[in-house]
Amino acid sequence: MDASHDPERRSWVDSASTEGTDFPLQNLPLGVARNAAGAWSVVTAIGDLALDLGRATEAGLLDVVPLDLLIGDERLNRLLAEPAATQTRLRQATADLLDRDGGTEKAARETAGLLRPISSLEMTTPTRIGSFTDFYAGIHHAIAATAATIPGADIHPNYRWVPIAYHGRATTVRPSGIDFARPAGQLPRGDGPPAFGPCEKLDFELELGIYVGAGAIDGEPVPIARAGDHIAGYCLLNDWSARDVQRWEMWPLGPFLAKNFATTISPWLVTVDAMAPFRTPAMRRDDGDPSPLPYLEDERDQAEGGLGIELEVRLRTARMRQNGEPPHPIARCDADYLYWTPAQMVAHHTSGGCGLQPGDLLGTGTISGPVRGERGSLLEMTVDGREPVELPSGERRAFLEDGDEVAFAGRCCREGFVPIGFGECRATVLPAPAS
Amino acid sequence: MDASHDPERRSWVDSASTEGTDFPLQNLPLGVARNAAGAWSVVTAIGDLALDLGRATEAGLLDVVPLDLLIGDERLNRLLAEPAATQTRLRQATADLLDRDGGTEKAARETAGLLRPISSLEMTTPTRIGSFTDFYAGIHHAIAATAATIPGADIHPNYRWVPIAYHGRATTVRPSGIDFARPAGQLPRGDGPPAFGPCEKLDFELELGIYVGAGAIDGEPVPIARAGDHIAGYCLLNDWSARDVQRWEMWPLGPFLAKNFATTISPWLVTVDAMAPFRTPAMRRDDGDPSPLPYLEDERDQAEGGLGIELEVRLRTARMRQNGEPPHPIARCDADYLYWTPAQMVAHHTSGGCGLQPGDLLGTGTISGPVRGERGSLLEMTVDGREPVELPSGERRAFLEDGDEVAFAGRCCREGFVPIGFGECRATVLPAPAS
Repeated sequence: MDASHDPERRSWVDSASTEGTDFPLQNLPLGVARNAAGAWSVVTAIGDLALDLGRATEAGLLDVVPLDLLIGDERLNRLLAEPAATQTRLRQATADLLDRDGGTEKAARETAGLLRPISSLEMTTPTRIGSFTDFYAGIHHAIAATAATIPGADIHPNYRWVPIAYHGRATTVRPSGIDFARPAGQLPRGDGPPAFGPCEKLDFELELGIYVGAGAIDGEPVPIARAGDHIAGYCLLNDWSARDVQRWEMWPLGPFLAKNFATTISPWLVTVDAMAPFRTPAMRRDDGDPSPLPYLEDERDQAEGGLGIELEVRLRTARMRQNGEPPHPIARCDADYLYWTPAQMVAHHTSGGCGLQPGDLLGTGTISGPVRGERGSLLEMTVDGREPVELPSGERRAFLEDGDEVAFAGRCCREGFVPIGFGECRATVLPAPAS
Repeated sequence: MDASHDPERRSWVDSASTEGTDFPLQNLPLGVARNAAGAWSVVTAIGDLALDLGRATEAGLLDVVPLDLLIGDERLNRLLAEPAATQTRLRQATADLLDRDGGTEKAARETAGLLRPISSLEMTTPTRIGSFTDFYAGIHHAIAATAATIPGADIHPNYRWVPIAYHGRATTVRPSGIDFARPAGQLPRGDGPPAFGPCEKLDFELELGIYVGAGAIDGEPVPIARAGDHIAGYCLLNDWSARDVQRWEMWPLGPFLAKNFATTISPWLVTVDAMAPFRTPAMRRDDGDPSPLPYLEDERDQAEGGLGIELEVRLRTARMRQNGEPPHPIARCDADYLYWTPAQMVAHHTSGGCGLQPGDLLGTGTISGPVRGERGSLLEMTVDGREPVELPSGERRAFLEDGDEVAFAGRCCREGFVPIGFGECRATVLPAPAS
């Protein structure tokens, strides 16, 4: 751990020291927001405020990377392609600038002039996402979702060997706060002909997103021992799913329209540096589970390749919003329930010859724990709608209804360290367009 | 049919009138090649030669679209985003320039100075492919591949309702002539643990590629009657497949590493205008097959939404190449064996709210006919390797071996029209890298 994790360090931005803030001086995530000139500019979060790193560089307050890596349509892609040491230096210089014991009073005054409330920002996805790949690494999700869909069914024997994944749609990955319309699709009707209409089993999926930093060249598999070096950071990710469409369309080539209408991410990339104190051992295998194949096995990755992130799913219906009721937590679990580590995902993804590009996004797959209250989707939570969730408003939910807002939160806590968070991953289901 | 299909029209480029050329004056496909300044420039093919449309515009010989739509890293993406009428005008102006009865002798002389042999070009994919979606519309392939994999098994009941598709990997789609190494992956070993090593069942898949022209906005489904308007053109596409990897990894989320290591396309976009004379009725349903659901049904599309393209697969082994033997045709079939039309693919793709972007590529899925000799993959042709193909060299192939070259050709023929072709879609399997 370097000095950036020192719990005694504090920012002169007061809200960065508030109990419960996602963005203390020890976090400093990267985002991309519209600046006064209308261009996309790299920003970081400190308490309730955002610092424009492009403007700070223009003003001579930061001098780590060229200005053109911080401003423009490329967003973070080119910055993430830089060596990890560059990103670490940018983080350190930013921390010094915001540290109450850091630089000069003049620098602090000038920096303060560049701060804007996070709530006033127009943010976009941190990277221009070239490719989006979604894994299926939450084993408790795989087990519960399989059983909810086909009572008594077990997961396929490949699960404990293969970090299963599929290619998703990059163009419909959107930052928190962008609502979307309920999708339409073919809906199975028992043995009769399918109907076509608005999805009747709309669901969320609680996932993490993983940003690729350094790219991997096509045809050059990344060894597991170096796979973590290709990861730049993490976000929260909601892989919205149309369960009825999915069940009908997915044989034999997997989900397509059931998933590609919308994916929501928290708009901040929480860096691997900020996450360093919160690494955990890889998920413990059950007795009888196989060891990972050699291309997926690395001692250090097994010891500290996991992620300790407390995750929460909050639901707020239109009625709750009208009544002024707060979002209601309907699930809590931890990211250490991932059967495969992020490094194993990178090693597997590149093992067949397909490279990765800076700014690519990987989803972990839905994260669930083994018990009720830890389920990362309604499919699991309500056993495919058969056991609806009860809300404090007296409403019940088998699947999502129009006007429902789903928000994820993520928080890393460890004794001796200042907790950090991920910001919000939130969107509301709008009615299907009139057809 | 407009004048561009007049069979009497001829170019002053002699090779454009050679029997069997893919590129008569009636074709004029679009490609992207490196120009003398090292930049990507839009080119067309005429006989054995290519005309640089960027340089022709600079020279004042063409004046249809601004130069910046014809030169640069964007390749064809911005040109395809223009109204279809613009692309039609560009085609007509190019035809006039190359017509022996067209322009002035001076213009012809200047144009001749801008021609280069196609064989000397460094070409790239015509568009910067943002997203690649692969369909599964060849019903004879679906039937034969299912039966070859699981003897006696039939295709899933969704097949005749849903234009099944999955998202592929856009970054590994490469133009003809780029060879690739045999991929490695997890290989099933009966009931025992899987092995990890070079693919033992490497295969090709004979497909067409469909380029999106005008984009479709997220959340605004394209009605079937207008879906064809979003298509700019076609190419040949080889969706190389690792059958052993695929069989093990694909449950339940579909193919991933088995397909994403390499996809090869012919480098020319054959325009919808050039294809106009070669449209066919949609594939005739069997008695008892359901009618398409309303969002997929359109009278005009049923009457002329299909494609009449004679397709051929040629295989040449390393030994055949050493012996100077020509590539050997191992399959012939026709694109009108597609159960879903390109317009139905576009309508389905956008029906759930996922838009399309100019330059996106859709694959049709493997095209096979119902009888032996018409199979578009070795999986079908050899019944999963059990009945190897015999080659004139005395060699046999269950699946592809290192050094094997696979080339596709496509040709459109119709009485009263000059035949057009697609150029070559070819690549050779290189040995797996030493591990």
